[in-house]
Amino acid sequence: MIQRKILRKNDIIKIGGSSWDLDKYRHIYVIGAGKAAAYLAREMENILGDRLFYGQVTVKYGHAIPCRRVRVVEAGHPLLDENGLEATAQILQLVKTAGSQDLVFCLLSGGGSALLEKLPEGISLTDLRKTNHMLLSCGADITEMNSVRKHLSLVKGGQLARAIAPASCVNLILSDVIGDTLDSIASGPTVADLSTFETAWQVLEKYQLVEKLPAAVQLYLQQGLRGKIPETLKPADPVFEKVQIIIIGNNWEALEVAQATARACGFNTLILTSRLQGEAREVAKVLAAVVKEIILNNIPLLRPACLLLGGETTVTLSGSGKGGRNQELVLAALLAMQDVQSDYLIMSCGTDGTDGPTDAAGGMIFPEIWTSAQQKNLNARAFLQNNDAYHFLEQTGGLIKTGPTGTNVMDILLALVP
Amino acid sequence: MIQRKILRKNDIIKIGGSSWDLDKYRHIYVIGAGKAAAYLAREMENILGDRLFYGQVTVKYGHAIPCRRVRVVEAGHPLLDENGLEATAQILQLVKTAGSQDLVFCLLSGGGSALLEKLPEGISLTDLRKTNHMLLSCGADITEMNSVRKHLSLVKGGQLARAIAPASCVNLILSDVIGDTLDSIASGPTVADLSTFETAWQVLEKYQLVEKLPAAVQLYLQQGLRGKIPETLKPADPVFEKVQIIIIGNNWEALEVAQATARACGFNTLILTSRLQGEAREVAKVLAAVVKEIILNNIPLLRPACLLLGGETTVTLSGSGKGGRNQELVLAALLAMQDVQSDYLIMSCGTDGTDGPTDAAGGMIFPEIWTSAQQKNLNARAFLQNNDAYHFLEQTGGLIKTGPTGTNVMDILLALVP
Repeated sequence: MIQRKILRKNDIIKIGGSSWDLDKYRHIYVIGAGKAAAYLAREMENILGDRLFYGQVTVKYGHAIPCRRVRVVEAGHPLLDENGLEATAQILQLVKTAGSQDLVFCLLSGGGSALLEKLPEGISLTDLRKTNHMLLSCGADITEMNSVRKHLSLVKGGQLARAIAPASCVNLILSDVIGDTLDSIASGPTVADLSTFETAWQVLEKYQLVEKLPAAVQLYLQQGLRGKIPETLKPADPVFEKVQIIIIGNNWEALEVAQATARACGFNTLILTSRLQGEAREVAKVLAAVVKEIILNNIPLLRPACLLLGGETTVTLSGSGKGGRNQELVLAALLAMQDVQSDYLIMSCGTDGTDGPTDAAGGMIFPEIWTSAQQKNLNARAFLQNNDAYHFLEQTGGLIKTGPTGTNVMDILLALVP
Repeated sequence: MIQRKILRKNDIIKIGGSSWDLDKYRHIYVIGAGKAAAYLAREMENILGDRLFYGQVTVKYGHAIPCRRVRVVEAGHPLLDENGLEATAQILQLVKTAGSQDLVFCLLSGGGSALLEKLPEGISLTDLRKTNHMLLSCGADITEMNSVRKHLSLVKGGQLARAIAPASCVNLILSDVIGDTLDSIASGPTVADLSTFETAWQVLEKYQLVEKLPAAVQLYLQQGLRGKIPETLKPADPVFEKVQIIIIGNNWEALEVAQATARACGFNTLILTSRLQGEAREVAKVLAAVVKEIILNNIPLLRPACLLLGGETTVTLSGSGKGGRNQELVLAALLAMQDVQSDYLIMSCGTDGTDGPTDAAGGMIFPEIWTSAQQKNLNARAFLQNNDAYHFLEQTGGLIKTGPTGTNVMDILLALVP
């Protein structure tokens, strides 16, 4: 699902307000990485036809689909693996052949950060994983973590754009982050980086990680501090003169499509936000509070009502069960809705078709789910406490399975009150 | 603020669809308990004039206001104390003098559960507090806890109605619970109780509390099990034939008043819910997500926008600071809104004028609060982690202090985007 139409008329390609005359370029390449990269690549194949010279994209295991001219490689996600490194090396090799008269379409979507990586010499996959693990558990915020990650990579922080130069580069980005902050999506391989080796080092010092770093990482960063390693690309870099970035889809657009569909089915609709955040089980209580108000008072929306929210919640794990943020959210909503007799449906799904480490995209609840749980003597609260929403929803008919969808624009939540 | 108008024309009193001809009654009493009881009593004085025979109400320390005919007594809340027991004894003494031709207005509002209590002989205040503490920390839900509490009381579970009989009883209730569930407000002293001594005992067994109970409590409940103590009042009890219950105000009506005021100021308004629940700092993230969508996209509400929510959030304490659920919520919202430059205001307040164990009703945030915190080098996240919203807001100008307001209909949250 590419949400912003890419149009082609003769040799002119139009996306939003921008256009390219294919006639002006010698070779046209397609590269990319991310959960949705294969679908994006196939769409670009359809649009470019035989003007497409060659391409390669990296997707998460299980997310490949057949393409004609673009090679699709599967690799590890969320943990980078050897396949990911090898595929990235091939992509870098490929763009090296592109010259100043060539055009490279770079297709990025969520997950691209793990799927597109080149490590500096001397730093191993194990070193990187250790460092990442330390960063994730030290309390650093995402900007701080990214400043370190970008300085342990030879593609992040605009460095892919450097590899693509002198060819022209058009980035088509499917955003899976709130606010579409470009340097966060796939760690910004074609976007300028404001942080430096100095910034990265300060972060490591702030969280007292310097001493604990793998020796090779420490050594590399110290060399960077001494100016012996090229910096990530800064905003004034001339490379960016030939780089364009276009968001071709995000959560907001998915919500609008869902809204139009609900309207066509006769529902009154209201989008509350495309920036939802928070602990899934608590967000569920707020959502339930609004749905109950609709049921009882037709507020904030007249029945038949379809309430829409988008974003991405989080789960703080305390149990040992199976689930994902969307499944956990609907299970918590079920508990909050248990006293409601009249009909309703609440659904929460990852748009990529994956929710946590499960084969489900998310879950849905309605009064019969509660009845079914009572009949089967399933204690919803106990399942929730064990972060085991998957097994609860599996037994009550509340799982939603779509398989990989080919897009990745965070989560969509929907509440229907007939 | 009595939100449902009580009208008097000659000797006829009208509330909603009900009316009473004062001429038909000999003496008219006013009794009550709860944070708002004094304001309610004064309003009843104004309405009844010299038809008011006598009255007494119990309020929380600091919540008394002068009344002419109704005696206002202050007592402990949220912890019941000796003054509360003594005041209740006086109220019971008073209604004993009411006969079948008399009318008792019983004014109940939130807090009434601790302010209106008569203990069975042999059970001390310490026994009750110990039992309550065990109940609060065992994981029992509110219905389970109430079944025990009602069976350790001689006023809860409809027993006050029994004391008022044979007089007629009109309960005017200001609701501070979601869904206005009557048996929860002030533990339902004039409402039938579906639980029994058997129910209460099963709860104590379920949570393995029986052995740990104070000896006197154990003994009393065992006597109850053997039928040696009168049960709480059940729905079929003839006492209820002369009991009427009217909700004269709740969160929803407060929201409507706020909405009307915002409209008069030129804001577009939207009430999302009057049933808000959840962990304050997580609810804040959802609220911030909606406010950001208004700022950026005029969704779900066109600017100038006033978004309204009501209900009551909770705080899981982990720090040692000072604050309340409303103050904590706005502090968490400030963190979620820190990247927002344009103007907005988010406010959350307890309608009773009290937020947690503080002298503030709640708090508010807007961009200048963040600027002020930066200038004073205050780390908002650290204050939040220490549950110390009060001291953060105090230093940045975000506290709202109203003093006791005379009402108590949970919390009101409001977001303004000009």
